[in-house]
Amino acid sequence: MQSKTRFRCCTLALLVGALMATAAHAARPERTFQTDEAFDAAAVPAYAGDHAAAYARIDADLDEHVAHLQRWVRQRSISAQDDGIDAMARLVADDLRGLGFRDVELVETPGHPGVLGYYDAGAPHTLVVYMMYDVQPIEADWQIGDPFAGELVDHELGTVLMARGATNQKGPQRAFLNAVDAMLKADGTLPVNLYVVAEGEEELGSPNFGAVLEPWIDRLRQADGAFFPANAQTSAGEIALPLGVKGIVYFELEARGGERGGPMRAEIHGSYKALVDSPALRLVQAIASLTDADGNTIAVPGYYDQVRAPSLDEQRLINALAATADDAGVQRQLGVSRWIDGIEGRDALVRLLYDPTLNINGIWSGYGGEGMMTILPHVATAKIDSRLPPGLEPDVAERMIRAHLDAGGFEDVTLRRLSGYPAAATGVDTPLVQASIGVFNKYGVVPRVSPWLAGSAPFYQFTRTLDLPFVLGGLGHGSGAHAPNEYMVIRPADGVNAAGLAEVEKAYVDLLHALAEQAGAP
Amino acid sequence: MQSKTRFRCCTLALLVGALMATAAHAARPERTFQTDEAFDAAAVPAYAGDHAAAYARIDADLDEHVAHLQRWVRQRSISAQDDGIDAMARLVADDLRGLGFRDVELVETPGHPGVLGYYDAGAPHTLVVYMMYDVQPIEADWQIGDPFAGELVDHELGTVLMARGATNQKGPQRAFLNAVDAMLKADGTLPVNLYVVAEGEEELGSPNFGAVLEPWIDRLRQADGAFFPANAQTSAGEIALPLGVKGIVYFELEARGGERGGPMRAEIHGSYKALVDSPALRLVQAIASLTDADGNTIAVPGYYDQVRAPSLDEQRLINALAATADDAGVQRQLGVSRWIDGIEGRDALVRLLYDPTLNINGIWSGYGGEGMMTILPHVATAKIDSRLPPGLEPDVAERMIRAHLDAGGFEDVTLRRLSGYPAAATGVDTPLVQASIGVFNKYGVVPRVSPWLAGSAPFYQFTRTLDLPFVLGGLGHGSGAHAPNEYMVIRPADGVNAAGLAEVEKAYVDLLHALAEQAGAP
Repeated sequence: MQSKTRFRCCTLALLVGALMATAAHAARPERTFQTDEAFDAAAVPAYAGDHAAAYARIDADLDEHVAHLQRWVRQRSISAQDDGIDAMARLVADDLRGLGFRDVELVETPGHPGVLGYYDAGAPHTLVVYMMYDVQPIEADWQIGDPFAGELVDHELGTVLMARGATNQKGPQRAFLNAVDAMLKADGTLPVNLYVVAEGEEELGSPNFGAVLEPWIDRLRQADGAFFPANAQTSAGEIALPLGVKGIVYFELEARGGERGGPMRAEIHGSYKALVDSPALRLVQAIASLTDADGNTIAVPGYYDQVRAPSLDEQRLINALAATADDAGVQRQLGVSRWIDGIEGRDALVRLLYDPTLNINGIWSGYGGEGMMTILPHVATAKIDSRLPPGLEPDVAERMIRAHLDAGGFEDVTLRRLSGYPAAATGVDTPLVQASIGVFNKYGVVPRVSPWLAGSAPFYQFTRTLDLPFVLGGLGHGSGAHAPNEYMVIRPADGVNAAGLAEVEKAYVDLLHALAEQAGAP
Repeated sequence: MQSKTRFRCCTLALLVGALMATAAHAARPERTFQTDEAFDAAAVPAYAGDHAAAYARIDADLDEHVAHLQRWVRQRSISAQDDGIDAMARLVADDLRGLGFRDVELVETPGHPGVLGYYDAGAPHTLVVYMMYDVQPIEADWQIGDPFAGELVDHELGTVLMARGATNQKGPQRAFLNAVDAMLKADGTLPVNLYVVAEGEEELGSPNFGAVLEPWIDRLRQADGAFFPANAQTSAGEIALPLGVKGIVYFELEARGGERGGPMRAEIHGSYKALVDSPALRLVQAIASLTDADGNTIAVPGYYDQVRAPSLDEQRLINALAATADDAGVQRQLGVSRWIDGIEGRDALVRLLYDPTLNINGIWSGYGGEGMMTILPHVATAKIDSRLPPGLEPDVAERMIRAHLDAGGFEDVTLRRLSGYPAAATGVDTPLVQASIGVFNKYGVVPRVSPWLAGSAPFYQFTRTLDLPFVLGGLGHGSGAHAPNEYMVIRPADGVNAAGLAEVEKAYVDLLHALAEQAGAP
């Protein structure tokens, strides 16, 4: 990266000054692909194992398994309101103990407690299973009276469990434990050892998840991978398998009146603008300095250069995604008429995955009501985030933004970081990913595998803190996370391709076996 | 102006391209003064007339005069809430009829009615008296129970009338009519003919004041001047006499998702910023293009050049103001540590009066609450105003701003004008101004005369629509316009220099006589 930048500067030294001024701005590096090969998920051998005893157990105990899901969603656990948190943490711990997990413990943190547990199967391989036991607050407009009643509801997709946490994430997590229960009852043991690491603050941004891992960190690092059970199917039964997430740095920029000028105490009459600096204009100028005039190209020097180029494996994944990309469909869904610069297909995928972003989540200052108020506000604030592809670290990103503001004379504009963590990415060739694809293929659902999501989550705790391959996924369909009428499909209606609870659990059985077999002898 | 601009361009043509790019930006014209003479308000002869009969009548009737003020403030007339408006308009009309005004009529408008009246004294000269009969809504934290009770309250400044409208503007307006009443009772006539033009929408920005003037416009244009009775004294008794106001153009700028990109329906997830235009960044860039990076120099080409240079008379006024300017005192009052660029004294006065401004009154988009929300908002809006010194017309200003936005590629950013009117300025040498200064000097209050206020008001209706000299002012002190505990001093306490009601009214008597004498024979 560095040498490439230096070379470009040498070339530019030959050009006139005016052009150099332009070159000082950041620009997207060219992201030429070295291969047009496309990854073929269907070519990964479908998992061939047959664990009939465990499957039969799942079918026989299905009513009981549904009841376990209901028991979990009936226990309130709204982290933002500290509602039911301790009881839910104990419920998770008790369930783990009931299944035969050892050393189960509640981990105190500065926030809500975590839960750790270990199932020692005496197996050569070990999987870390991540769980979140907290849920979002309740919105006003649910169609059912009590989002914590754990009701089974008739839905166009079949019988669904409609409840807060049904799909995010109590449903799939307890389904995973149901699969464990069935394997233990059928086979007396598990094909891999399991760690469960559960936190109660995922909906708060996982501020203390590091503290939850801390007591067992050395043990956890010895595992073979980390897994987050989730309903990854669409209602049509399709499945996306992203192998990571972008990082993020989220901060507030704020301009206030102070020693350099501007009203310090409160707003003043707008006519004084002739003599008094405007914090609102100051903030606008500071933010404007972070992008080119289009608002789409980040002007912080070197910002794009930090992002690592797509690896050959990633290029193959993107080539495959591009072959069936439906830009117009996604645009319709979002209510967007076109992508930036009118790009589409592979170009759009590359931007989505490899471009850092600079986005205003909110901005406010002064008067926002009807009609006119003539004031010079004393403070102006914006909430800004930057999504960080692998290679661009949050601390580096923040430092570069701060330095660019300072270089532009905006030393007085405050940058208050609210959150920040790096990207996470797992290679498609890791045993955990290969096992996952194999299991999906067994169930006839060829996954769309992507290098990572454009969104962010603190999965670096697995890929970096624990240094493990990490997969999020599973059969099953739900919807309504962070929205009313959250549900998970339990028994799909005829013609619905999304898996029902029994199949979801059988696929978890297969995954543990497939991982044990993929990983090979120790 | 035009030829000067052309000359400067020719000079610049000799320079390199990079410098020309800078020159394309607007810059403050140099405002070199041709004179260091200072206007001496004390040198204007104090008004020497003595109208003892009228003065005696005022003293004798003072309790009744106070009762008239109380009667006016007791009639609610909150224009924003259409509360008491029609009753107040009738009350004004009835009072005028009672005083002997002819042709008194209510003028229907698309909003609240106006009131017109004419007192024919058979005099050679005629004054238009502007009144506003509406008041602001009531704030929560008044120290008295009912802001419409018309209470006389003991105050550190003496006995005051504390009520909504006490000083803004019912108190001074009815005081003026009290003076008229006393002159009529003492002398049987007035020294000048009077038009009263009253509106009920001043607090709404006078949207229909043109319609109020319209029926009598040709008659009104024949008058010698227009006057707005007001309590112009500070609590220390000092008086400012601004001879005009800046104009204003007030507009909203708004960016939304649309055909060129961005979310059209609603906010979307912030991670899509890699592919989707941000209306908030678009708005920020558009606003940023209107000023240089300091937020203080307007970057719209030619914007400053429209403002006319200070006349010799204005230079003398400013030289006088500069001699006693208290920048630090005003800064302390405003809570501001310094003026822009650290200027002060005459330089600051020139900027305050001759700089057009570009100010953000408010800006808002997306999420403004606690913590983090990761969205790409679909709309962003700002309320922006530009104060316009004489020479810069609101239509021209708006057109230049729109053209500059378009030239910068911001055609998609909507400009919604909410209000706009030009500046108003009256020459210091006009008989009305000279009469006013003479009367103030008689009462020992040498006024600080300024070319105009940095603030805005639609006084162009007098100086341009009616083409008349216009003065706003009078003895008397009040405070709390647009705030709780509004008051007007009725009987000042010992040692308080602000005039009491009797002196306020006597000065109005003197003003009408002084104007008749100043204006000379027809």
